[in-house]
Amino acid sequence: MSGAPREHFDPAREGRDPAEREAASLAQLELQLERCYEGIPFYRRHWDEAGFHPSQVTAWEDFTARCPVIDKKMLVADQAENPPFGSYLGIDPAEIARVQASSGTSGTPTLYGVGAEDWHRAGHVFAMTQWAMGVRPEDVVQFAFPFSLFFGGWGVLYGAERIGATCFPIGASDTRRHVELLFTLGSTVLEVTPSYALHMAEVAAELGYDPASSPLRRAIVGGEAGGAIESTRRRIIEAWGLETVCDSGSTSEMFPFCTTTECEEMSGPHLYNDEVWTELVEVDDPHSAVAEGERGATVYTHLWRTSQPMIRFASRDAAIMTSEPCVCGRTYPRLPGGIQGRVDDMLVVRGVNVYPSAIERALRETDGLGLEFRIYVDRVGEMDEVTVEVEPAEEPDDERSLGEIRARALEALRYRCQVRLGCEIVAPGSFERTTMKARRVIDRRSAPAEAGG
Amino acid sequence: MSGAPREHFDPAREGRDPAEREAASLAQLELQLERCYEGIPFYRRHWDEAGFHPSQVTAWEDFTARCPVIDKKMLVADQAENPPFGSYLGIDPAEIARVQASSGTSGTPTLYGVGAEDWHRAGHVFAMTQWAMGVRPEDVVQFAFPFSLFFGGWGVLYGAERIGATCFPIGASDTRRHVELLFTLGSTVLEVTPSYALHMAEVAAELGYDPASSPLRRAIVGGEAGGAIESTRRRIIEAWGLETVCDSGSTSEMFPFCTTTECEEMSGPHLYNDEVWTELVEVDDPHSAVAEGERGATVYTHLWRTSQPMIRFASRDAAIMTSEPCVCGRTYPRLPGGIQGRVDDMLVVRGVNVYPSAIERALRETDGLGLEFRIYVDRVGEMDEVTVEVEPAEEPDDERSLGEIRARALEALRYRCQVRLGCEIVAPGSFERTTMKARRVIDRRSAPAEAGG
Repeated sequence: MSGAPREHFDPAREGRDPAEREAASLAQLELQLERCYEGIPFYRRHWDEAGFHPSQVTAWEDFTARCPVIDKKMLVADQAENPPFGSYLGIDPAEIARVQASSGTSGTPTLYGVGAEDWHRAGHVFAMTQWAMGVRPEDVVQFAFPFSLFFGGWGVLYGAERIGATCFPIGASDTRRHVELLFTLGSTVLEVTPSYALHMAEVAAELGYDPASSPLRRAIVGGEAGGAIESTRRRIIEAWGLETVCDSGSTSEMFPFCTTTECEEMSGPHLYNDEVWTELVEVDDPHSAVAEGERGATVYTHLWRTSQPMIRFASRDAAIMTSEPCVCGRTYPRLPGGIQGRVDDMLVVRGVNVYPSAIERALRETDGLGLEFRIYVDRVGEMDEVTVEVEPAEEPDDERSLGEIRARALEALRYRCQVRLGCEIVAPGSFERTTMKARRVIDRRSAPAEAGG
Repeated sequence: MSGAPREHFDPAREGRDPAEREAASLAQLELQLERCYEGIPFYRRHWDEAGFHPSQVTAWEDFTARCPVIDKKMLVADQAENPPFGSYLGIDPAEIARVQASSGTSGTPTLYGVGAEDWHRAGHVFAMTQWAMGVRPEDVVQFAFPFSLFFGGWGVLYGAERIGATCFPIGASDTRRHVELLFTLGSTVLEVTPSYALHMAEVAAELGYDPASSPLRRAIVGGEAGGAIESTRRRIIEAWGLETVCDSGSTSEMFPFCTTTECEEMSGPHLYNDEVWTELVEVDDPHSAVAEGERGATVYTHLWRTSQPMIRFASRDAAIMTSEPCVCGRTYPRLPGGIQGRVDDMLVVRGVNVYPSAIERALRETDGLGLEFRIYVDRVGEMDEVTVEVEPAEEPDDERSLGEIRARALEALRYRCQVRLGCEIVAPGSFERTTMKARRVIDRRSAPAEAGG
């Protein structure tokens, strides 16, 4: 955090005058809308129904006010009707270079098809954003994201390869092996979920290593909210003795164009909006932009992508935007505080809005707590009730110290969430560790009520 | 198997006059030996000790007669002394593009470092060999090799990407998901271990699909002996209704230069010996070449690779070589019958040499048997005794049909192995399925003898 401008991967692009960039991006948007209307049945049908036509857009305000949003549910329904890629593929299937998938909550995976030109273009974007997060040709980058259906790991690997770093894509593997090879090889960058970064540090200590004096200099995290939570970030930095932990990632629908990523200043994700135009809108009205500095919900648009382009995809991530430039010298807008969970994840406890990310933040700030926790949500009458179960850092000596830890946690939760939540300390190791997104919110509201419950 | 010449990826190279190619390769060998002697401490030390100097090589015969072989054990010892890459890295560590590893029987992984130039060069070689096995730009290629430490899957993915095929790298995943997505997506090529290809067909049938009318046209197999065994190949072809099943692969030490791969004729792996020079030598004397048509042990040499080049690496795979050209038009030598297991895997049962691959062949030819089996090796006095346990295709109706299956298996084993082996039919599902190499030979000879055993 030098406070001085940083070296950029694509200086002309990253340091461009914002007004000039927005004008150029608007011209590209107009081309993209025309192309989608002419060539992609999904958009034509949907836009015709809504009375929208690309010719209505001559300014960014028009785009927000008039272009309909799309969401995950619409894409899933369209793929079910038009298998395998939906009526929004946009290219000849023979031109697809890469297929990935999400598992899908319904059990039916959503398929992502990426054309050869888009895949190549994404390589440049990934290299630019990985560079901004500090990856250099002399780095040894260890990847702890799984390489399978999910898109995440593949993209960051591609970016680090383009930069010319030494890439070590272990993927999903035994944690001891990850730790041992990290020290053997002298890895300098770890790409990982926040919770797995913390778990690896625990295992390193158990194996007799001192993680705080590891060869690692940086972690690039994604796949979970943790990277946007300062107290989690701080714990990862301290556990591994790092210079930076940068948060990275949007949704699989936008991949492989992952343009919501931090720089070495850790000042919140920069929005590379000459690639993916990002709006913040009112939660209940996607046609009303929120003012700068106000919390809104994200809406993403691929400006260049031709295979499965997303036009106003409402991912409903909660964030706050600023156009105040980062000292790194990049002139993109930013999301200070990062993605603060999905707006749909918001819990309402006795009239107070509570985000799971605020709960995580409170727990990370509490001395004596371990890494893992679960948030249970129940419905009592018309009200949501939230109970947090959390592991201690180590087996407490006695009942009294256990009580003290619990009291500190309750106080931190009340402070960060502005409402009183239940909290129980459970035995260390109660909760599973995973290389993928930890599922920490267990919603029991839709389950049938138990007698006496 | 048209019997007509096939289209080549790199026609000038693949169809070159063999004598001209060997002369050019010899010139390259001389450069490579000089480079290794001057720049790689491992080779200089080892060659000096053996009284070998690159200037002694002016013909291929000199190379076989005078250049020492190296083996896995020497590389492991050198890495232990010179971590992490050994004294045979050959390039500046900063130039390494890719690190992979093998788990290592001792528990200490062997690290493979590949320089950027070698990695790029390997992409062309992988594309050439994947093309020879029938992969085309219009194919949808599904990868069932895991993407983790092991090198296998990464290389074939790279080759299919270079060809411009649609790549679907699921890797290690739930088998049902593999099967469902194969049918949803219409995958035309499956890259997989032989045993997992058969297991996937079983699961497809359980899920109600008809694998024999699947969209698949080809399987490219590796990682196990099965691809070289005609009866296993035939079962995979029939199970999935394929045109070809091609065998592919050498050892991790030679990766990412995997140059022992078949063509669509399925006439045995072609040896792309302008990339990796491959010799067949006497099992007990690596300085004596075996005559064409005789069984020998493989010795591999990287002619171009500069990062961790292997010079006369004795992998001790058993094979027979021919220079008789394949009808595909490629003018490389071939290994009819493929890699027939490692010479060290050979069992001696009452004086008769028995290869595990011969046991697999016998079982694949026996009606009523399932896919999985295990070979137990015990020492009785000075003699090896071999017992095979094998699953039936389905739960037998009664004792009599069980007895008939067992009698057929015993007869097939006696015929293929030329010696009587023990055989027991066990319950279906007794043995684990895996996406990686199945461990089918359980050697109990080194275990302490049990009383009465």
